[in-house]
Amino acid sequence: MWQLHTFSLCPFSRKVRLALSEKGVGYELVREYPWDPSEGFFTLNPGGRVPVLRLDEKKLVLIDSQAICEYFEETVDRSPLILGTAAGRAEIRRLTAMFDEQFFADVTGPLMVEKMKKRLVLRQPPDSQALRLAMRLAHEHLDYIDWLTDTRRWLAGAQLSLADFAAAAQISVADYLGGIDWSGHEGAHSWYRVMKSRPSFRPLLTEKMEGIPPPRHYADVNA
Amino acid sequence: MWQLHTFSLCPFSRKVRLALSEKGVGYELVREYPWDPSEGFFTLNPGGRVPVLRLDEKKLVLIDSQAICEYFEETVDRSPLILGTAAGRAEIRRLTAMFDEQFFADVTGPLMVEKMKKRLVLRQPPDSQALRLAMRLAHEHLDYIDWLTDTRRWLAGAQLSLADFAAAAQISVADYLGGIDWSGHEGAHSWYRVMKSRPSFRPLLTEKMEGIPPPRHYADVNA
Repeated sequence: MWQLHTFSLCPFSRKVRLALSEKGVGYELVREYPWDPSEGFFTLNPGGRVPVLRLDEKKLVLIDSQAICEYFEETVDRSPLILGTAAGRAEIRRLTAMFDEQFFADVTGPLMVEKMKKRLVLRQPPDSQALRLAMRLAHEHLDYIDWLTDTRRWLAGAQLSLADFAAAAQISVADYLGGIDWSGHEGAHSWYRVMKSRPSFRPLLTEKMEGIPPPRHYADVNA
Repeated sequence: MWQLHTFSLCPFSRKVRLALSEKGVGYELVREYPWDPSEGFFTLNPGGRVPVLRLDEKKLVLIDSQAICEYFEETVDRSPLILGTAAGRAEIRRLTAMFDEQFFADVTGPLMVEKMKKRLVLRQPPDSQALRLAMRLAHEHLDYIDWLTDTRRWLAGAQLSLADFAAAAQISVADYLGGIDWSGHEGAHSWYRVMKSRPSFRPLLTEKMEGIPPPRHYADVNA
């Protein structure tokens, strides 16, 4: 069976979990903490980052969330997530990369440092200026999602795709950490409620990170 | 004809240029400066980043270096760069992402800030501590390339692949900026000499960034 090395609030691990679940691929979770990886984790991935997916029977180790998603796209026919014409697939990959890189750098990454790492590891108060900046940039990204959902059925076009899961994975972590304010973003909010209510999303919403309780609305699919 | 919005020392633009050239896809260069994008560039890419590739005849705009490379992998048969089994392709994508993200974050990105942006835009001297750190981390990445070239014909396996071009694109920018010291890295150095001598590499080596001369060895395929 596949083993997925992950930690609960890693948005890239969440993206992989959503894709695997949509495709009906079973896996076992192996918890890693980014600041305290298990023995042998660096042997598995010299880059030191989750998610890592392994299949010991085949001596297979897959690293990098996008490489993992592309692998299952190529090997599992069910629920294609990078689909359509070549231009359509390029649009899915553009948006996926935008959420993985820019949303993460602007919003999720800073929130994880200020509200998780500083609380659990560094034992420092969060920097309120950094938090304000992350929340301001979150509004800009939500504006863009408003625009996308206003002009398209799903983020990358007429079909649900990996772009939706990559975006929802980032947003779910930012929301857990109290960084998402939906006011003024009705389009983005409706889209996210639909994503949240998918069966693939449910296991993520019930998990808690020890020492960091999520806001009350976080797991409520109607909120 | 394809138009590629790029700037000379952008490693992601270089990766795309190498892939296009290997695949025999012609394009015209449109120069952008990251700190002073041309009028309309943000309309083209709200993310504001190069490379962007457009084909006006088909109203096609491709954004994100990996999405662009995957697009041509899917549409042009010549010189496959993401090739082999699904596991082999996952390894190519893992290494490509590692160079695009980790090498860039550790080495190329800091060098571009300290030796390019500070000189041309901020008019500040480089921070010598940041430069020392980037060069120390470059050695760690070169150690890993030594190990890869010691155990494999090319970085991701038996075949030349996108991983080699992604790595060489990052290294070529770092080398232009004086950040690469090959001592103790004979394996990585031999591999890079071979990459440098490919016809696809030549146009990159002859380009100069105004105000920043490259070191003498930079364009010498034997150095």
